[in-house]
Amino acid sequence: MIILGVDPGIASCGWAVLSTVKNKTIDVRNCGVIKTPKDMSLGDRLCIISGELEKIILEHEPVTAAVEQIFFAKNVKTAITVSHARGAVLLTCAKMGLKIHEFTPLQVKQALTGYGQADKSQVGFMVKSILKLKELPKDDNTVDALAIGICSAHSNPPD
Amino acid sequence: MIILGVDPGIASCGWAVLSTVKNKTIDVRNCGVIKTPKDMSLGDRLCIISGELEKIILEHEPVTAAVEQIFFAKNVKTAITVSHARGAVLLTCAKMGLKIHEFTPLQVKQALTGYGQADKSQVGFMVKSILKLKELPKDDNTVDALAIGICSAHSNPPD
Repeated sequence: MIILGVDPGIASCGWAVLSTVKNKTIDVRNCGVIKTPKDMSLGDRLCIISGELEKIILEHEPVTAAVEQIFFAKNVKTAITVSHARGAVLLTCAKMGLKIHEFTPLQVKQALTGYGQADKSQVGFMVKSILKLKELPKDDNTVDALAIGICSAHSNPPD
Repeated sequence: MIILGVDPGIASCGWAVLSTVKNKTIDVRNCGVIKTPKDMSLGDRLCIISGELEKIILEHEPVTAAVEQIFFAKNVKTAITVSHARGAVLLTCAKMGLKIHEFTPLQVKQALTGYGQADKSQVGFMVKSILKLKELPKDDNTVDALAIGICSAHSNPPD
């Protein structure tokens, strides 16, 4: 099964395509981050994110998308900005027929480390270990997208 | 000039198509509300909103879209939900080539009544009067979309 993991954001939107075989192995097909310029209008930035995601979906044909949920306790302005990106990401994935699973940061940390309050380095260590990566991607949003993808693979194992 | 006014929301998304002639008259071409079922996934609800907006844009060919901004002081959960709808609305309008103007509720009230703290009935009275309507639409989101459209017509007069 091919899974698309997405860590939504306006300036940086992390994505990761993972393939799982009967939940025994999880491999990274590709991953990266979609960046949009600050001086561009919000509508145009959302167009870039949506357009790039469309290309990734067409290339890798994932069956499901795993998208990080908003953590309400964060500051309101950030939550509102991220929600715009989430809206565009969910719309794009749903339009392209992907089954969408949403996970809170706590669920992702729990699934990867067994501990909902794990810090960034612990999550990174598990991402690297589970996916047998030589090095973690430098971009945090990409690492988060990989983590969400792994969480989805563990939570919704294919038949 | 044809203007599309949008009051974004997940359950109810108000819309109004207005035509202005040299800012002297403003006429309603059509208006209404896009409703989505509560038991549907967020992605599918955003697909309905986007799909209906696309049809409206194709039919009326507006040049600009006027979209209400989030009022930060409202409760966080509502703001986050509305932001998902805003993301989908902005993406759809930008993708279809519309020039987007965003207005805060205060700007809309100011433009219509001259008073940023005007209440709903005062705004409704001015919408009815400016657009020479016999009756206001029953749906509040539709009235808000008309108000945003009028605000845009006043703020960005065509040549």
